[in-house]
Amino acid sequence: MQDQHIASAFDRDLEAVQAQIMKMGGMVENAIRQAAKSLETRDEDLAEEVRGADKAIDFLENQINESAARIIALRAPTAIDLRVILSVIKISANLERIGDYAKNMAKRTSVLASLAAVDDSGGAIRRMALTVEGMLKDALDAYIQRDAELAQDVIDRDEDVDQMYNALFREFLTFMMEDPRNITACMHLHFIAKNTERMGDHVTSIAEQVVYLVTGEHPDEARPKADKTSLITKA
Amino acid sequence: MQDQHIASAFDRDLEAVQAQIMKMGGMVENAIRQAAKSLETRDEDLAEEVRGADKAIDFLENQINESAARIIALRAPTAIDLRVILSVIKISANLERIGDYAKNMAKRTSVLASLAAVDDSGGAIRRMALTVEGMLKDALDAYIQRDAELAQDVIDRDEDVDQMYNALFREFLTFMMEDPRNITACMHLHFIAKNTERMGDHVTSIAEQVVYLVTGEHPDEARPKADKTSLITKA
Repeated sequence: MQDQHIASAFDRDLEAVQAQIMKMGGMVENAIRQAAKSLETRDEDLAEEVRGADKAIDFLENQINESAARIIALRAPTAIDLRVILSVIKISANLERIGDYAKNMAKRTSVLASLAAVDDSGGAIRRMALTVEGMLKDALDAYIQRDAELAQDVIDRDEDVDQMYNALFREFLTFMMEDPRNITACMHLHFIAKNTERMGDHVTSIAEQVVYLVTGEHPDEARPKADKTSLITKA
Repeated sequence: MQDQHIASAFDRDLEAVQAQIMKMGGMVENAIRQAAKSLETRDEDLAEEVRGADKAIDFLENQINESAARIIALRAPTAIDLRVILSVIKISANLERIGDYAKNMAKRTSVLASLAAVDDSGGAIRRMALTVEGMLKDALDAYIQRDAELAQDVIDRDEDVDQMYNALFREFLTFMMEDPRNITACMHLHFIAKNTERMGDHVTSIAEQVVYLVTGEHPDEARPKADKTSLITKA
């Protein structure tokens, strides 16, 4: 009887902290979408909103950490329960990083708005960002439903993001070589593209946490690493 | 009597996992130093060594995570003891990211070796990397000695790294505009410089963990953020 009581108290605590994770996830999804939109439409007010919202995301991460610590101290979970609580800490850290990248994207909107536009690069970056946002949504669904298959699917899709990034990297090199007046804008755009690719890596980390939670094993170490730009010697 | 026995068992466990952190920290310091050296001297064998060593760093992070989970499950620590164990997880995650950036720097050594050198940029990056390495050493010392003052000093020094990065960003823009043949090399060098600046951010995170451990408060949120390049519109 006593055991059952403790177990359900833990479950209630867990549910509460998982609700915080989902709330944080929703805010981060929103930040990605809005940041990409502000970049494409050169909407500085929207960019400012994204930057302001990041504080709330950071605050939520601290709250989640404190909740997790309180649950551990109060319920002394072991085995799978402990693994779940520790995953909460890791996932919120990943979400915080993704939010930071979105904020950084928004930060560059004003600068880019003051420079000549470089072809359709804003649109290309938005498509990449929306792919990452979709992956994040699925990674969080996989987390809540403890769905290792969906999580593995997210991990696999990160390769698409890497390929989009590779294509952009080459495009930016070409634009810069064609016209030096593109250099400054392309440096900023390249930053944003790389940060978006990194968002994908953090989403992948979340999905890997889910696989680990469900199967108890770290997903295949040999996951494809498709950012090949470190090998590029010419456009 | 029973209590004392439990307390000292916890202390022994904690000492063991902190020794793992210090070992991991030493490996990461080494990776930074060697990666920067391989870049400056165009030493591809040394770069290959750095890339190989990263696997051991990743493995150690997993081991530390498992040790931390085992200690929590076994000793059910609360309050400050729990905070210490949770900090171990955060610090090892930061170290793993820094190691990744060093590996990435080494990865670009071969490509850069195949391109014409861009002025003294290799030396400038090495100086920046050594600054970060010194900060990491001090952050880990601050952690072991629970020295909030030293940790705060590390946090303050991150501004130097940011300033070094800002100067390099402008330099790379200038080199690219002067001669389009510099563009590809400068894109890689800029990446490396930005990643080194990010290493500094992760070291700062470690130092912030130390401040939190010692004082129970998150360090001043308003820490200087001196990467100003997101605002640069011309070289």
